[in-house]
Amino acid sequence: MKKLSGIPVSDGIAIGRVLKLVKKEHTVEAYTIREEDVDREIGRFTDALNKVSCQIQALYESTKQKLNEEEAGIFAAHLSVAEDPMIEDGVKDRVRDERMNVEQALKLTLDEIEELFAALDDEYLRERAADVRDVGGQIMDCLLGTASLDLSFLPYPCIIAAKDLTPSETMSMDFSKTMGFMTEQGGRTSHTAIISRSLEVPAVVGIGPMLDELEDGTWVIMDALDGTVIVNPDAGQIEFYKNRQEQYETGKRLLAELKDKPAETKDHAFFELCANIGNPGDADKVLDYGAEGIGLYRTEFLYMGNSHFPTEEEQFAAYKVVAEKMGDKPVIIRTLDIGGDKELPYYTFEHEENPFLGWRAIRICLDRVDVFKTQLRAILRAGAYGNLRIMYPMIISKEELMQANAILETCKGELRSEGVEFNPDIPVGIMVETPAAVAMADVLAKYADFFSIGTNDLCQYTLAVDRGNGKIADRYNPLHPAVLRSIKKVIDASHAQGKYTGMCGEFAGDERAAVLLAGFGLDEFSMTASSIPKIKKCIRGLQITEAKQIAMKALEAETIEEVETLIGYRK
Amino acid sequence: MKKLSGIPVSDGIAIGRVLKLVKKEHTVEAYTIREEDVDREIGRFTDALNKVSCQIQALYESTKQKLNEEEAGIFAAHLSVAEDPMIEDGVKDRVRDERMNVEQALKLTLDEIEELFAALDDEYLRERAADVRDVGGQIMDCLLGTASLDLSFLPYPCIIAAKDLTPSETMSMDFSKTMGFMTEQGGRTSHTAIISRSLEVPAVVGIGPMLDELEDGTWVIMDALDGTVIVNPDAGQIEFYKNRQEQYETGKRLLAELKDKPAETKDHAFFELCANIGNPGDADKVLDYGAEGIGLYRTEFLYMGNSHFPTEEEQFAAYKVVAEKMGDKPVIIRTLDIGGDKELPYYTFEHEENPFLGWRAIRICLDRVDVFKTQLRAILRAGAYGNLRIMYPMIISKEELMQANAILETCKGELRSEGVEFNPDIPVGIMVETPAAVAMADVLAKYADFFSIGTNDLCQYTLAVDRGNGKIADRYNPLHPAVLRSIKKVIDASHAQGKYTGMCGEFAGDERAAVLLAGFGLDEFSMTASSIPKIKKCIRGLQITEAKQIAMKALEAETIEEVETLIGYRK
Repeated sequence: MKKLSGIPVSDGIAIGRVLKLVKKEHTVEAYTIREEDVDREIGRFTDALNKVSCQIQALYESTKQKLNEEEAGIFAAHLSVAEDPMIEDGVKDRVRDERMNVEQALKLTLDEIEELFAALDDEYLRERAADVRDVGGQIMDCLLGTASLDLSFLPYPCIIAAKDLTPSETMSMDFSKTMGFMTEQGGRTSHTAIISRSLEVPAVVGIGPMLDELEDGTWVIMDALDGTVIVNPDAGQIEFYKNRQEQYETGKRLLAELKDKPAETKDHAFFELCANIGNPGDADKVLDYGAEGIGLYRTEFLYMGNSHFPTEEEQFAAYKVVAEKMGDKPVIIRTLDIGGDKELPYYTFEHEENPFLGWRAIRICLDRVDVFKTQLRAILRAGAYGNLRIMYPMIISKEELMQANAILETCKGELRSEGVEFNPDIPVGIMVETPAAVAMADVLAKYADFFSIGTNDLCQYTLAVDRGNGKIADRYNPLHPAVLRSIKKVIDASHAQGKYTGMCGEFAGDERAAVLLAGFGLDEFSMTASSIPKIKKCIRGLQITEAKQIAMKALEAETIEEVETLIGYRK
Repeated sequence: MKKLSGIPVSDGIAIGRVLKLVKKEHTVEAYTIREEDVDREIGRFTDALNKVSCQIQALYESTKQKLNEEEAGIFAAHLSVAEDPMIEDGVKDRVRDERMNVEQALKLTLDEIEELFAALDDEYLRERAADVRDVGGQIMDCLLGTASLDLSFLPYPCIIAAKDLTPSETMSMDFSKTMGFMTEQGGRTSHTAIISRSLEVPAVVGIGPMLDELEDGTWVIMDALDGTVIVNPDAGQIEFYKNRQEQYETGKRLLAELKDKPAETKDHAFFELCANIGNPGDADKVLDYGAEGIGLYRTEFLYMGNSHFPTEEEQFAAYKVVAEKMGDKPVIIRTLDIGGDKELPYYTFEHEENPFLGWRAIRICLDRVDVFKTQLRAILRAGAYGNLRIMYPMIISKEELMQANAILETCKGELRSEGVEFNPDIPVGIMVETPAAVAMADVLAKYADFFSIGTNDLCQYTLAVDRGNGKIADRYNPLHPAVLRSIKKVIDASHAQGKYTGMCGEFAGDERAAVLLAGFGLDEFSMTASSIPKIKKCIRGLQITEAKQIAMKALEAETIEEVETLIGYRK
């Protein structure tokens, strides 16, 4: 057993045997041809070029058919490369004027073009260089008779392993037998990545040297959800990944089935399903999964993956991207939540005996007003481009909320006097993730525009259990009636003030919890985007009247076991 | 400024000038006397002996008068030493038979007796040796005319500094000008210690060499509460210790005034005031302060100050001492509460990121059933000798309480079949110190015989604040309405099941809290013994009807500031 890892570029899990696609290196001999052989030599080239053009034409047609016009575009581009006089003239001139054999003439021509493109600082043109290489390689294969493996015939259902794959190779494969792609090279935006996603074939690229260790027929598990490749897995691993695969497939089916349907119970109670994101780029995926908004945008990644506290402009740009992508849909931006177990590369935190009970989140922001103001200004400004909301983490008192809001008002005043565009009416809510906030929910609901329950921390503090601590991890369980009662209390307190409560902790994406949370009247569930379909399915399977009864009984439960029995997760 | 430290043997704080009591060394010449001078020499001795006997008699009378018959006992003992033929005969024989001068005869006689006693392995007799030294020294002073300082006349109110003090010296002092004693030598059970306590004069002994650094008239602060002596203090230190002195004096007055009165409000609501202890020896003090029981016996000191997990016998002995000392009064023994910040010298805890949210207290006991059973058996057995109760710390669920009780039942079964005496009906309660226990208080009250609220941890978990963390320590405040609401909820839940709730966290000994806790209906307050008088005074100053109103308003308060205003701790 050996574990490799790479960049997952097309979701899915493949469990199967490897087929290595090893390209023969082109060995190009260089010799001078006789005057009388020039035409024959040029004829060889023209034949090869025509043959390749035909192949490309065929790939274009089949891609258009199998996928769509857009994906076929790459082959239209290849066709225009094949028809580009730059190659044809370059080769013909060299054969004619310098009496080179055609292989050498082609090689020098391709090298020349490649060098030309490589020097350019333009991504579009660099991609064209790859097209030239791909097409040129095909012509060379024709000339040398080195055409690799006939990919349209694969000997067994397999996971293709290669150094890299050209679009031509990818598209000429027998997809009925292609379970996945794994390559040593390549990145997230390579053609292979794009096409494998379109084909919905799982793919992991950029794995690094691996071909020498693989034989045709070697069993591998390729987890293209997280980029793991296990070579020669054991039975337990196969079992585990078969389950994971099944879950993934179910999710995909569910998504297809439910994406455009609402999270509505059988008796027509509606819930809002939103997604949690960490990076602006995640917003696309969120929409793909049918999220009705972003319930938690964790801005700390902007701070953690940086060499300095991000500037107002850097933050503004990031928040604006998300605001614009999501349009009317709400986006809840959580202000900086560092400390605890989250550190910054450019800021040294003092050692703390119990960092989870330490200087973190809003506590840092209220002490470092400069850092806080930079973020608040960026959010206020980005608020002009979409439906943004602000959320403060780790609030334990009305005092903190008031203090943070006073700083927010200062920022608004500054922006106003600077004449900078911003949203002055941005709603401001709080995370409810401390027992203190639960106890004071009735008071906080008067002053916050909304609540979002952070079940991870709330559960940790309520049960006094660090869930990262292996010795007591079994004591961490959000189905503990104490946690459920806290959740219910918070929801009721917000409703009494006409406010709404969401949940952005992991419990919101837990299928076991859906009946309870719906029964408690939770307004919005926010979770990893890919969990949305399964939670939607849960909710669509509920009768809200029944869910309410079960939820009320759970509040009377004395033990976790009783709760599990109630929701049918214990025999 | 210089700080010294010694053993505090008599409570109090003295701030004043030093008077050094430097004894002249006895320089004893040795010479042979003439035959005809024997009677004169023996006459000198008899005179000295008579004079000393008179002095001792006078001290006996004055001590009986100033203190009591018991304390005067030491001088009755001295008198019998003076009258003991061992000294008289020893001296007379040497003078008569060996023609020694009387000073040398006395010296040799005293040395002989001292050697004799020193060889004996009997504390009583060793103490008699000190008496012999004291009395013998006085006779020698008489003979040599070296009688030290006339302690019955002190030039100014002073703190007496000496190498050591004999009971005779101590009792002959002008107490109206004696502010304290500090000695280089001596221990907790020395006569000086005992007498200074009786005289209520603060004393620190065993300080080590210090006399060379002191002048008569040097200013010192002697804190005989913790054994600190500050030589040449600055103005800030004097200010600080004057406050401390005042608090101590107030406490003493209160204690004298209130010791035997109940903690009863003006309108006749009664509360139980108990003490927290760490060692069996603390039980005496507890009774001195008028505690009605021990609300928290922290057994971890038995584990921490040891080289191994204490055996059942070691624990049984410790618990039995306390049970017997307290008689009918209840003693709540908390089972082992290690982990968190409390470690053991003979057991290595794995590193934890957040030890306060880690493997601690009952969690350790339920995992280390062997250690837990040893303690439970010891408590059950000691329960036969007094009014013991068991309390489990850090409970977060009914499951844990049931699990612990099952182990307790196993222990009972074992003891029964071994025919060992124990109390099978020992009440079993829990600490309520996690938000989970608060949330589940109604359920836990069904299964626990009593609650005791641990406000220190409860406040930490509720507010998610490690109070030991300087960066956020200002956020730790048990007057936070979230903490108050939790306390009220727990009390109500216990009462609904006919159970009682105590409190053993520091909040119980906080004067600001008394009106709130009484108003909430807390049944028992347990605190450092020395805080009992001040809390009793608070309670005796309350109208319970009014306290209830204030307490109810505190539950509606939105901020700490509002609570402080309500209870009059904020202008």
